[in-house]
Amino acid sequence: MNKVKVFAPATVANLNSGYDLLGLAIDYPGDEVVLTKKSSSGLVITKIEGDEGRLPLEAEKNCATVAIQAYLDYMNCKEGFEVEIHKKMPIGSGLGSSSASSVAGVFAANILLGEPLSKKELVQFAMQGEKIACGSAHADNVSPSLLGGIVSVSSYNPLQIHEIDFNLDLFVGVVHPDIEIKTADSRNVLPKSIPMEDVVKQTGYLSSLLLGLSQGNEEMISFGLQDVLVEPYRAKLIPAFVEIKKMALKMGAIGCGISGSGPSIFVMSKNKKIAENICNEIGKKFDSLNINSQSYCSAINKEGAKVVCEYK
Amino acid sequence: MNKVKVFAPATVANLNSGYDLLGLAIDYPGDEVVLTKKSSSGLVITKIEGDEGRLPLEAEKNCATVAIQAYLDYMNCKEGFEVEIHKKMPIGSGLGSSSASSVAGVFAANILLGEPLSKKELVQFAMQGEKIACGSAHADNVSPSLLGGIVSVSSYNPLQIHEIDFNLDLFVGVVHPDIEIKTADSRNVLPKSIPMEDVVKQTGYLSSLLLGLSQGNEEMISFGLQDVLVEPYRAKLIPAFVEIKKMALKMGAIGCGISGSGPSIFVMSKNKKIAENICNEIGKKFDSLNINSQSYCSAINKEGAKVVCEYK
Repeated sequence: MNKVKVFAPATVANLNSGYDLLGLAIDYPGDEVVLTKKSSSGLVITKIEGDEGRLPLEAEKNCATVAIQAYLDYMNCKEGFEVEIHKKMPIGSGLGSSSASSVAGVFAANILLGEPLSKKELVQFAMQGEKIACGSAHADNVSPSLLGGIVSVSSYNPLQIHEIDFNLDLFVGVVHPDIEIKTADSRNVLPKSIPMEDVVKQTGYLSSLLLGLSQGNEEMISFGLQDVLVEPYRAKLIPAFVEIKKMALKMGAIGCGISGSGPSIFVMSKNKKIAENICNEIGKKFDSLNINSQSYCSAINKEGAKVVCEYK
Repeated sequence: MNKVKVFAPATVANLNSGYDLLGLAIDYPGDEVVLTKKSSSGLVITKIEGDEGRLPLEAEKNCATVAIQAYLDYMNCKEGFEVEIHKKMPIGSGLGSSSASSVAGVFAANILLGEPLSKKELVQFAMQGEKIACGSAHADNVSPSLLGGIVSVSSYNPLQIHEIDFNLDLFVGVVHPDIEIKTADSRNVLPKSIPMEDVVKQTGYLSSLLLGLSQGNEEMISFGLQDVLVEPYRAKLIPAFVEIKKMALKMGAIGCGISGSGPSIFVMSKNKKIAENICNEIGKKFDSLNINSQSYCSAINKEGAKVVCEYK
């Protein structure tokens, strides 16, 4: 095969009590990458669609090509590719936009090389895309985008990526308000150290969430979707967040929180209709504040990155 | 029934990454309580064995009777009892000595009243015994002592006690060196606040431990039995702890840490022989330091508090 089109889904990182630890994949939106072998080595970005000119075309600066190059270097492979990137999700939204591109790139390259590595083994290269895009090689978006489902990045050194089994139909709605929060800003707002009693509280929430998922217990999941470490600080960066969260829980969400470093808000629910209704109401709330927004609702994506088309 | 003898097991709290959150029960040692209905209301401690005179005989000061009284008050019950306490484990050892007595007391009272409450519902009363004994109403020892197995105290307000399913034969060895660490001292040595990066590291360990237990994955459990929050500080209170831990892991332990607030050390292993061998070596190490020690090895106790004898 010389040419392939792949899709990598958007992701919701943190999940309240799992700051810098947990992430999940949703069915859409997500990014597509078309990769074509070329006769010489090196990577060339031939097209980026849907980014409104915001992303770099230079291969050494774009997260997708940086991730691919890290993969090729590791494989000691001299193959060269033309790269088309179709951004189908908002940039800087807290939905793992750079991760989706990085994952799609490295996943496509692995396909064209005959899948020598597993999806899990690709995480480390996609992380290099994160590093160029965000300044730090985080894995809590790239892991679920690659693997699907809900994933725990339990350690970076050594890298420990754990997929979380859960036996429950769970739906996720995300609403992206058109306001900009830089990842760096949303990190700077956080305290540098945490009172021990808050750490104990947070680990209790995390425990409830993880045990609730493994036991299929909705109440435990709901209790676990709380956050005393990060949300109180980042909530201030998102207009009406506290009010919106209260409304979402009242309307039947299992949980509600900030997606990644924001500004997107996610809700989790037992059925899609509830998630859709809540997203509608959140959209109306942002309308009333003169903020445009887009929303997406789907089941938790269990597949992760996938091939869209193998060109003959 | 007018008289019953019950047993409540010793417990290992914290489990490295689960500070103030996780605890497990072991088969022995543990405490026995004999409860006999009397004709008038009120609680009378008729005997305490095995405490070397260290525990109070006044009902309003002893953790077992305080727990029973809290239970009777809640049940609005005027029944009175004679209480015998057989301490069969060291006091102030980090093995949940006061918890075992509190649990045995309240469990016995519930039996004599015809079991109106579930074991889980008894946790709140046993906690009152902890409060009188240790100054704070912790639940990470009383919960596993009552319920058996490995338990997560995911929240105090509201009280959330979650039993952890695990599908793996796990053995625990504990070695108690005859040195005294007061619970208050072992709390004072801890930092009041924790750098965010350590919090993230610790939640990663906790996640690995909980997911490893639910997936029956020994490596994940082992990775999760680490602690950057508490152990580095409390280790200094236990002679040769760092050396002992290194030896235990080298000898095949899945994990090793401080039991509760110490000074007991616990090891976890896949078979009993490994745990026994390690406990032997730890005992020899303490011998070489002129410190007496006792050790106990058993499977994780899955039953918790139990009736030993129903008197006719």
